[in-house]
Amino acid sequence: MVADSPFVSDVPAAEALEAWHEGCVAAGCPARVDVMRVPVGDAVGRVTAEPVWARRSSPAFDSAGMDGIAVHAADTVGAAETTPVRLADFAVVDTGDPLPEGYDAVVMREHVHRDADGTAEVRTAAPPYQHVRSIGEDISATELLLPAGHRLRPVDVAAAAAAGAVELAVRRAPVVVIVPTGDEIRPIGTEPAPGEILDTNSLMLAAQARELGCEARVTPIVRDDPAVITEALRAAAADADLVVLIAGSSAGRDDYTARVVAGAGTLSVHGVAVRPGHPVVLGAVDATPVLGAPGYPVSASLTFDIFAAPLLASLEGAAPRERPTTTARLARKLASNVGMDDWVRVRLGRVGGEVVATPLPRGAGVLTSLVRADGLLVVPAGLEGHHAGEHVRVELLRGLGEIGRTIVAIGSHDLVLDMAASALRADDPLVTLASSNVGSLGGLVALRDGLCHIAGSHLLDPATGEYTLPYVDKILDGDKIAVVRLVHREQGLIVAPGNPLGLSGVDDLVREGLRYVNRQRGAGTRVLLDHELARRDLDPGQVSGYSREEHTHLAVAAAVAAGRADTGLGIRAAARAFGLDFVPVAEEPYDLVLRDSGLHDELLAPLWALLESPTFRAEVEALGGYSCAETGHRIR
Amino acid sequence: MVADSPFVSDVPAAEALEAWHEGCVAAGCPARVDVMRVPVGDAVGRVTAEPVWARRSSPAFDSAGMDGIAVHAADTVGAAETTPVRLADFAVVDTGDPLPEGYDAVVMREHVHRDADGTAEVRTAAPPYQHVRSIGEDISATELLLPAGHRLRPVDVAAAAAAGAVELAVRRAPVVVIVPTGDEIRPIGTEPAPGEILDTNSLMLAAQARELGCEARVTPIVRDDPAVITEALRAAAADADLVVLIAGSSAGRDDYTARVVAGAGTLSVHGVAVRPGHPVVLGAVDATPVLGAPGYPVSASLTFDIFAAPLLASLEGAAPRERPTTTARLARKLASNVGMDDWVRVRLGRVGGEVVATPLPRGAGVLTSLVRADGLLVVPAGLEGHHAGEHVRVELLRGLGEIGRTIVAIGSHDLVLDMAASALRADDPLVTLASSNVGSLGGLVALRDGLCHIAGSHLLDPATGEYTLPYVDKILDGDKIAVVRLVHREQGLIVAPGNPLGLSGVDDLVREGLRYVNRQRGAGTRVLLDHELARRDLDPGQVSGYSREEHTHLAVAAAVAAGRADTGLGIRAAARAFGLDFVPVAEEPYDLVLRDSGLHDELLAPLWALLESPTFRAEVEALGGYSCAETGHRIR
Repeated sequence: MVADSPFVSDVPAAEALEAWHEGCVAAGCPARVDVMRVPVGDAVGRVTAEPVWARRSSPAFDSAGMDGIAVHAADTVGAAETTPVRLADFAVVDTGDPLPEGYDAVVMREHVHRDADGTAEVRTAAPPYQHVRSIGEDISATELLLPAGHRLRPVDVAAAAAAGAVELAVRRAPVVVIVPTGDEIRPIGTEPAPGEILDTNSLMLAAQARELGCEARVTPIVRDDPAVITEALRAAAADADLVVLIAGSSAGRDDYTARVVAGAGTLSVHGVAVRPGHPVVLGAVDATPVLGAPGYPVSASLTFDIFAAPLLASLEGAAPRERPTTTARLARKLASNVGMDDWVRVRLGRVGGEVVATPLPRGAGVLTSLVRADGLLVVPAGLEGHHAGEHVRVELLRGLGEIGRTIVAIGSHDLVLDMAASALRADDPLVTLASSNVGSLGGLVALRDGLCHIAGSHLLDPATGEYTLPYVDKILDGDKIAVVRLVHREQGLIVAPGNPLGLSGVDDLVREGLRYVNRQRGAGTRVLLDHELARRDLDPGQVSGYSREEHTHLAVAAAVAAGRADTGLGIRAAARAFGLDFVPVAEEPYDLVLRDSGLHDELLAPLWALLESPTFRAEVEALGGYSCAETGHRIR
Repeated sequence: MVADSPFVSDVPAAEALEAWHEGCVAAGCPARVDVMRVPVGDAVGRVTAEPVWARRSSPAFDSAGMDGIAVHAADTVGAAETTPVRLADFAVVDTGDPLPEGYDAVVMREHVHRDADGTAEVRTAAPPYQHVRSIGEDISATELLLPAGHRLRPVDVAAAAAAGAVELAVRRAPVVVIVPTGDEIRPIGTEPAPGEILDTNSLMLAAQARELGCEARVTPIVRDDPAVITEALRAAAADADLVVLIAGSSAGRDDYTARVVAGAGTLSVHGVAVRPGHPVVLGAVDATPVLGAPGYPVSASLTFDIFAAPLLASLEGAAPRERPTTTARLARKLASNVGMDDWVRVRLGRVGGEVVATPLPRGAGVLTSLVRADGLLVVPAGLEGHHAGEHVRVELLRGLGEIGRTIVAIGSHDLVLDMAASALRADDPLVTLASSNVGSLGGLVALRDGLCHIAGSHLLDPATGEYTLPYVDKILDGDKIAVVRLVHREQGLIVAPGNPLGLSGVDDLVREGLRYVNRQRGAGTRVLLDHELARRDLDPGQVSGYSREEHTHLAVAAAVAAGRADTGLGIRAAARAFGLDFVPVAEEPYDLVLRDSGLHDELLAPLWALLESPTFRAEVEALGGYSCAETGHRIR
């Protein structure tokens, strides 16, 4: 009996970093990158390699702090409203002018009356050094201006230049070389054949390295052959301060990274207690640290954040960059693996004065979960998760101001919401419409629980044949709730081009051998199917594939397009998007449900204006399967 | 009678921005910069000019979600611990492999026992599509991936590439041309003559523009001549999306910016209700926005933040970047001009579990206040200020994590503290020692009020001749307070090289015509002077210049070096720093006062370790005037 059990372990992240560090030291990796001297103007973003002491004072001379006249303070003694003093000996100065020799105070020009005879009258006594900027007011020669290990910002280099620095000793940018591996990986720009994958990870990790101020280079894609990978790794290590080897870090048949690193150098860690990210390889080859990153894009990105970023900061001798955090209320229960740090991507919105966090899909392959994330919530190992409503600490990926200007839509998915999101943003970069797709019912519940501003719904009440309103009464008590029509849209069976099985309607769904793909529980489209089946006295159990669930219209269409299902109920726009055919079943209203205060809320105003726009309506109807006859009408 | 009254007004910032925007529109300035198509890999940091819709689904095929075997789910029905099922028809797959034709589920390899005869045994039934990553799980073709007006991050371009994008339509980087003006301005790298100023502002503003993702160019320095400035402005406007004209924005004799902008184009605003920043010019020339920035460096930097940054973001069609904020307790009373938004730079530290904000010097010329700032506190127009201890909202310039790892020292200034700050950071980039100089007495009061971790003190008690300890009893009740010796140091009269006035000690300070420069009230050095005068029965009123105050030893030395004063009491290291002579007066201990819990606090541990370091002690003694014989001793 042959058991291929995986040999990756679960080392906690902090221990893994420590083990990697020790392994690197033992392997002779340098603690810091080299020092170079660069002109002050080129030093921004780099890290000081030594303290910057002021060589010169700034200002370098006493100067006028105001526009006015320079005077001898002693000459003004006794000046007052009733006893003005007339001065013949003064000098006109502007702010910043050196204080002319012999004068020791400045009187603001608003407080001076100059006569045609060249004298000036002052009505307040000027104490010595009034409005005089002293030499060294900003910087005293020899003081410590900046410590070593400081990442230089624009103000820092300006101050260093003012203090007499012409060049600064800084660490050079660390060099990161990224080595993509895998027989199935193809360069971006090629058209991948079935089973092939575009090398988007290299693009992403190189960009992440550059964001950290590093130089990044990507090698050609290396095929799954340990000898070739070893050669590529050694070549990369020769030029790099860090090599990132992408994929092959797991324990599959083609996963050679750990073996290759162990063979060519030191393997410190294989497998970390971080999800997503788990099968990570940390080691060193030829005195160069090596990170073996998993091929799943979310794992690759987070792994770089968690392991590469601190190493790179340490090579520069600087503190790692950190993300700001905020406290948020968790929209729903979050279970977590007790043995792992769980990095959960969340959407954030400010609803009812509080920041609310809604977890996004957690798969390591769902890169869009990171694209759409406003924050990261780490559930540390040892914790089983969080309850709904619990307050949690979230690392911010977007600014809180921007989050506060985001319209949060939770509920059913519709392409028109996507179009609205895009149109709103194009109009005003400050407006964001973020929608999470949890089905109509989920949306109404989210609205009830204060998790969103609007809920998109097309829920049919089989008893009355009415859409959405009966549910509003039931779930939301109907209190202070407004309902605004977004569109009418056609629902129907999405079928392969040419409708090869000749489906004509819901009656055909019980046909022997037909493969249906359904929507998730709580989705309006599923309720519609149930209703249509019930009307015909058909039993869901008779529909093969009834229990297979997808979460969006597009996912259903994708399944049909891939030949993985014969049909599924969905909107015409989804069929059209995939070049599929469509058998109409029903026309239904799709509505936006909200607290009625939202009708006059500044945040939502751009949305209501958009729904009135003829251009927008024309674009929606051009999608096919939509009618805007009642768009924007308040139906409750 | 000729009154040069200034003609700048006080337009509130929001109104000024609005007026500028309207002026730009009227002047024909483009609302957005041009669109260009760039390869996805080059698009990071740029802003999408149109929405990005998915051209392809990702993954583009059903694939194995785990390492294991692909099976027909139907074949596994009934499998359980007690009734294993043996499969002959399966395919070995690794994570990410396309699901082989005909199979519809994956069993993890940990749950499979493969026999030598080529069969596999499973002990759990696999539901259809178990561990199968569906086509479109991440991205469904045609869905909205990114809206227009989105600044692209590494994950965004990776997702766009996965969705089939090879190029993206983005806004090109706005071009900022910076025009420094002023007869007294000299390029960095030259040695400025007295009265001349290095052009550090151009360096800083160009770097700020680049930080925002813009291209920035600096023209040669333009002399103070309206015709020449006009010509330079027009030339700059021809290539720029924004021209920043530095200095000349006030109402001094050489301040031509407003006139030049009005003459060559549209002047929208001259003078804003923002401090520092007040004399700002906003307008447009040749269909290009122009910002006239004040010459004071803090004003220039903040003005760019407040006015240029939103304009540049709008040119890209993106939301402006925003700084994270935090709540902090204000260390001391803060008065503010009711008519102006007051941008106060603050140091932040976490003391006793709370973030504490200490205002830094507020002068528009004190660039180091921005260098040392951890945050910005805006006191809006209409508010007279804040009380000490009030909780205020602060925009963060450093991460809260880093702030939490900062040792906050408030009190007397000593070069040894600067050296310690630098040595600690060089050792460990995560350690920061930040010191604010408010004098010994101020430091003890700050420690009492929970505003700092350590207070540097060398306060002489004239009654007992003892240093610091009597004050600890008086101010801190002596309760749970530790005192650690930092150094002994020499205090004396700082005098011009060669001691031209032949001063021999404190007795000479009452000499007719001698110009003394004193330290501020509460400074240990001032207490020492008072004590030495009292011992001699001399009256402070006899010392000419007794009321002139500087806040640091170095500032006193700078005043003597500049010939602005003949002498001042200070430490030998300060005299030495400026190449001055020194007449010893006394040797005094300089101590660190802290709550005794700090002796075992992880935060302070690196400092205690440093004080034991022979290298550090040697460096200190090499400064001259210091003895480390008791360094690190706990004297209480």
